Amino acid sequence: MASNEVWLESLITATPQEGRALAILMARKTIGAIQSDPEIKKALREKYATDSAQLIASAEVVAIEFRTVAEANNYWRK
Amino acid sequence: MASNEVWLESLITATPQEGRALAILMARKTIGAIQSDPEIKKALREKYATDSAQLIASAEVVAIEFRTVAEANNYWRK
Amino acid sequence: MASNEVWLESLITATPQEGRALAILMARKTIGAIQSDPEIKKALREKYATDSAQLIASAEVVAIEFRTVAEANNYWRK
Amino acid sequence: MASNEVWLESLITATPQEGRALAILMARKTIGAIQSDPEIKKALREKYATDSAQLIASAEVVAIEFRTVAEANNYWRK
Amino acid sequence: MASNEVWLESLITATPQEGRALAILMARKTIGAIQSDPEIKKALREKYATDSAQLIASAEVVAIEFRTVAEANNYWRK
Amino acid sequence: MASNEVWLESLITATPQEGRALAILMARKTIGAIQSDPEIKKALREKYATDSAQLIASAEVVAIEFRTVAEANNYWRK
Repeated sequence: MASNEVWLESLITATPQEGRALAILMARKTIGAIQSDPEIKKALREKYATDSAQLIASAEVVAIEFRTVAEANNYWRK
Repeated sequence: MASNEVWLESLITATPQEGRALAILMARKTIGAIQSDPEIKKALREKYATDSAQLIASAEVVAIEFRTVAEANNYWRK
Repeated sequence: MASNEVWLESLITATPQEGRALAILMARKTIGAIQSDPEIKKALREKYATDSAQLIASAEVVAIEFRTVAEANNYWRK
Repeated sequence: MASNEVWLESLITATPQEGRALAILMARKTIGAIQSDPEIKKALREKYATDSAQLIASAEVVAIEFRTVAEANNYWRK
Repeated sequence: MASNEVWLESLITATPQEGRALAILMARKTIGAIQSDPEIKKALREKYATDSAQLIASAEVVAIEFRTVAEANNYWRK
Repeated sequence: MASNEVWLESLITATPQEGRALAILMARKTIGAIQSDPEIKKALREKYATDSAQLIASAEVVAIEFRTVAEANNYWRK
């Protein structure tokens, strides 16, 4: 990774909704780890946010990350 | 996410059928989190709903999300 | 979903073979939930059924759905 | 499915190698369930068997099916 | 499969590193099961080894196979 | 693999953040195992780091690898 920033202290979240936000963050951080240039990232983001096939592919990544987060949290069962 | 709306209070559903509906909602909400403009979303939706490859990719995302929901619900075993 | 039809009462099936049929049904129902127009669905089906890449992608969706069904049925172990 | 042939009596196999063969069969049977015309299937097979991207996609389907088979067999641990 | 060669006697490996090698072998053997002609395989290999999208897709297959191997080995926990 | 270098001694990491770094390493090592030429690898890397679809595909591989790492570490639950 380009920086030593610690962004993932834990997979535990208070709610499923926060788990979704973490899954999205995880996906974005991977892309940031591969492409760290802010200008290029912004241009790429504009591209995939208006391309339905790439949006679906992004949703797949988030779904996979969320599975891990949900499992870590024992599905937030009460 | 663009809004602070809480849409995922729990992964628990009463029936498998409701679990399918939740899985579809989860996939849609991810796309809405990345692309929040209603006009662009509508145009993209028209595109992928008439493209067989993108429909299959969408079905894959739903299948992954459903797995998590099914597991959370212990597969609705009685 | 376009209709309120309940098509998924349970993930439990008597045999692995019936589990495969359910996995295929699950994949098809997702596509039907996104694209409910019968004419468009028929045209898209003709397209992906003659495109090897799309057939392989369809098989991947079925494989993911089947995993969930198999797990729900404890792999039909005796 | 086009026929009522029962091809999946059990997920249990004697060895990991037989589990691989079953995973490949499962992937092929899904494609046969969607496209049952033997002439079309043969033409499509020739296409994907000489296209590296489609071969890799096929290998992904087999990997997913194998995971289910391996789990059903408790990984053939002794 | 084209041959009756037994190449997968067990999913158990001594180390995680050997587990990675097995995962790569599993992916390659699937491709060899679909396309057994050595000349065609060599040509296809040259193609995907110089295509970044296909390399990433290959890495996905290996990741899926490795998950199964890791699980079989109880993650090589001591 | 081209070399006998041992790079994966264990799936256990001290923190989730280190688990992410390991998942990224695992994905990269697979690509290095298939394409070991440093010049070609560098050119391919420049290509996929500026292609949004390939970045998303890379993020999917990392998500799958991370799931295995997270499971091995029992999700770093305390």
